[in-house]
Amino acid sequence: MAPWGRTVPRREKVLTLDTMNPCVRRVEYAVRGPIVLRALELEQELRQGVKKPFTEVIRANIGDAQAMGQKPITFLRQVLALCVHPDLLNSPDFPEDAKRKAERILQACGGHSLGAYSVSSGIQLIREDVASYIERRDGGIPADPNNIYLSTGASDAILTVLKLLVAGEGPTRTGVLIPIPQYPLYSAALAELNAVQVDYYLDEERAWALDVAELRRALCQARDHCCPRALCIINPGNPTGQVQARECIEAVIRFAFEERLFLMADEVYQDNVYAEGSQFHSFKKVLTEMGPPYATQQELASFHSVSKGYMGECGFRGGYVEVVNLDAAVQQQMQKLLSVRLCPPVPGQVLLSMVVSPPAPSDPSFAQFQAERQAVLAELAAKAKLTEQVFNEAPGIRCNPVQGAMYSFPRVQLPPRAVQRAQELGLAPDMFFCMRLLEETGICVVPGSGFGQREGTYHFRMTILPPMEKLRPLLEKLSQFHAKFTREYS
Amino acid sequence: MAPWGRTVPRREKVLTLDTMNPCVRRVEYAVRGPIVLRALELEQELRQGVKKPFTEVIRANIGDAQAMGQKPITFLRQVLALCVHPDLLNSPDFPEDAKRKAERILQACGGHSLGAYSVSSGIQLIREDVASYIERRDGGIPADPNNIYLSTGASDAILTVLKLLVAGEGPTRTGVLIPIPQYPLYSAALAELNAVQVDYYLDEERAWALDVAELRRALCQARDHCCPRALCIINPGNPTGQVQARECIEAVIRFAFEERLFLMADEVYQDNVYAEGSQFHSFKKVLTEMGPPYATQQELASFHSVSKGYMGECGFRGGYVEVVNLDAAVQQQMQKLLSVRLCPPVPGQVLLSMVVSPPAPSDPSFAQFQAERQAVLAELAAKAKLTEQVFNEAPGIRCNPVQGAMYSFPRVQLPPRAVQRAQELGLAPDMFFCMRLLEETGICVVPGSGFGQREGTYHFRMTILPPMEKLRPLLEKLSQFHAKFTREYS
Repeated sequence: MAPWGRTVPRREKVLTLDTMNPCVRRVEYAVRGPIVLRALELEQELRQGVKKPFTEVIRANIGDAQAMGQKPITFLRQVLALCVHPDLLNSPDFPEDAKRKAERILQACGGHSLGAYSVSSGIQLIREDVASYIERRDGGIPADPNNIYLSTGASDAILTVLKLLVAGEGPTRTGVLIPIPQYPLYSAALAELNAVQVDYYLDEERAWALDVAELRRALCQARDHCCPRALCIINPGNPTGQVQARECIEAVIRFAFEERLFLMADEVYQDNVYAEGSQFHSFKKVLTEMGPPYATQQELASFHSVSKGYMGECGFRGGYVEVVNLDAAVQQQMQKLLSVRLCPPVPGQVLLSMVVSPPAPSDPSFAQFQAERQAVLAELAAKAKLTEQVFNEAPGIRCNPVQGAMYSFPRVQLPPRAVQRAQELGLAPDMFFCMRLLEETGICVVPGSGFGQREGTYHFRMTILPPMEKLRPLLEKLSQFHAKFTREYS
Repeated sequence: MAPWGRTVPRREKVLTLDTMNPCVRRVEYAVRGPIVLRALELEQELRQGVKKPFTEVIRANIGDAQAMGQKPITFLRQVLALCVHPDLLNSPDFPEDAKRKAERILQACGGHSLGAYSVSSGIQLIREDVASYIERRDGGIPADPNNIYLSTGASDAILTVLKLLVAGEGPTRTGVLIPIPQYPLYSAALAELNAVQVDYYLDEERAWALDVAELRRALCQARDHCCPRALCIINPGNPTGQVQARECIEAVIRFAFEERLFLMADEVYQDNVYAEGSQFHSFKKVLTEMGPPYATQQELASFHSVSKGYMGECGFRGGYVEVVNLDAAVQQQMQKLLSVRLCPPVPGQVLLSMVVSPPAPSDPSFAQFQAERQAVLAELAAKAKLTEQVFNEAPGIRCNPVQGAMYSFPRVQLPPRAVQRAQELGLAPDMFFCMRLLEETGICVVPGSGFGQREGTYHFRMTILPPMEKLRPLLEKLSQFHAKFTREYS
């Protein structure tokens, strides 16, 4: 009986698990998966005074620097505040170069306001700034602003390019090669778009190196059941932290050219390189320096973001993609597709403009900007080193060097009885480990199964972002928990 | 010969018009289509000193208030500036209530910074603010923050809900009923998702009213070749400007319930109602007041945005969707899908928070906020009236009242010889008219064919956003051009 006092006919819902988009059902995204939902619950329980063996949940699951206490870069926020509220241009509290930057950007906005839509590809002036940045980064190799599209974080641009590439049915369905371990945006996007995920494995024994023979194996096997058309590279690696050598990049480009694969280079960690001897080489630069036919024909999309680097401005959702050698008609189609979404968020575009054209040595803000930038990068380098060192002192944990990016991806030995217990519970063994870790220590990391790993191996991804004073105890607590867990199931 | 002095093997591109995603190729989006690209070119030519019969291009093609000179609401920008650059919390130049709002929001952000990711559904505090707003708007009917998802403008949320609904192949493919004329986000999204667009026509003779008999006709015909599962309503109407009467909404809800259709209510113009006797009724409110089974079973998604209303903050890409009676498991799937995109832009979330919880009468900012808000809405109302009046004085132009939203969609008579000339040029007749209008007057409007219209009728969409002092001459110039065009082809 309904409250209105008469029987109500029951009708099945239009939208149920059975009737909804089956591609969406197949999507998985571990970085914000069940373990993170549990972490949120635990935080709530702590707030309600429930007793736990820890006093705070430490979210080392996601590359979110400012959530971990990193301070924003002052200059970036000054310019953005001036743009948001131009009355501040009269305030004596802002440096002259910040005001000049803000005025320059506002001039380029519709109605001189961040509140107007920009053109769909992003504010032309900022696309030009990005082109200049790429030219400087790549030792003078030209970049064309018309090949640069600003985006809602890098994720949005990656999805757009994948969307263009997807076609076919059954054995002609588009296949896309992605690294294993991967950042699960890729697997999620491919599931959503109903494309075929083609796994190639990074070599853990050689510090997660990318091996062309393995690319070839993956490609050959995939050709049986799909039409592989694109190859994704994440460099520096997420979750694996390796930085690719120049020779390796050249080999990958030759391979992609020979096998007719569209290259997608996820280079959002290009400012995050820590290891001595490691250096970031952009795919665009290497491709161009290889000369024709690579320089003139190989299709490439390279992605960057304001969420990572030294600035960590994740919440603003800024980024860009540069396309190289894209077919002109396809590029028009891409432009059209972007126009449906109107424009990327303008504040993110503004921050991107600062990142690609920071204060020059002669500017009043230079010294402070440089000091803040260096402090963040130096601390990240120290934390990368510390992480590797502490984990490798622990029996049963082995961690490759964190050459770049923001994560360690250590391998953990799990006793057979723990594996068996996990299977009884219907959980991946490393998910079981990570859940227990969370419940007993408050440390939230993501199981390796969310990124992919060789069968029978177990890992987790942990950010190196917690502040130094918290990171060492955290690493030690985690190692001790692993030892205890191992004893418990031995 | 390549510049390197040897012959280069030519290789076909991986990605061409022939190999790319055919669904993306089918996407069209007139609001930023060829006419707008030509407007950009004309602006550039004017800057380069090319002589034209006009001195500026007037972009009346898109609902972008601030690009047309509307000033941002001071309070919104003050709070956002404080959040972006919290040093300003010590400044005496900001009112206390703006500081309190900013502090409250920063407390709810990761690391107390807009630079941290929010949870994927949006900052919990702001979801609660939205729920309170909906309750006030709907006369106390409860809203659950857990049913509210913040988004990257309304477009993003609309795409997300459509994505959930799409399934099937051939005759079981999902069909979605959309109004004609429509806002072309819908046709574009359905093309991209490979769903079937099912057109129902609004009745131009009755001020673009929605008629259930026409819904039924469209549905019956569609059932032959697809599986219609959703019904989209735009109220107030875009591009048509009608505001739906309550009885009409009730009839639509009964129809959707009987025919098992998921309701999508695009209510982004809910603050933009001008005509006397017109009033905005939310689908949620009407649905709930109809009692069971509608209130308890009919599935609904309602969309709102910070881009329209009195604030017009398009560039920040803020919005939300409220879902009602959604299957719990489907809602989890939606949550998962959103998590892949990490989070909506946080500055847009902050602005949304101001829109849904503006200053109260006792707050220091109230008087100014209220004055600014009323000034914008009063001017829009006057411009709506003026537009209708001037157009209806012109022979061969007929314009329904602009009861709400931000556009007029007048019908124009085009002489048969003009229609013939357009056909020779391979253009839709109203595209031909609008292109000539642009070339001769600098006025940029969007042809009705981009929104859909009854065969043999011709329209254009023009925003009512140009400032009052420009709008009257603009309307007159347009009417005169139409008269001249008609003479030319008679």
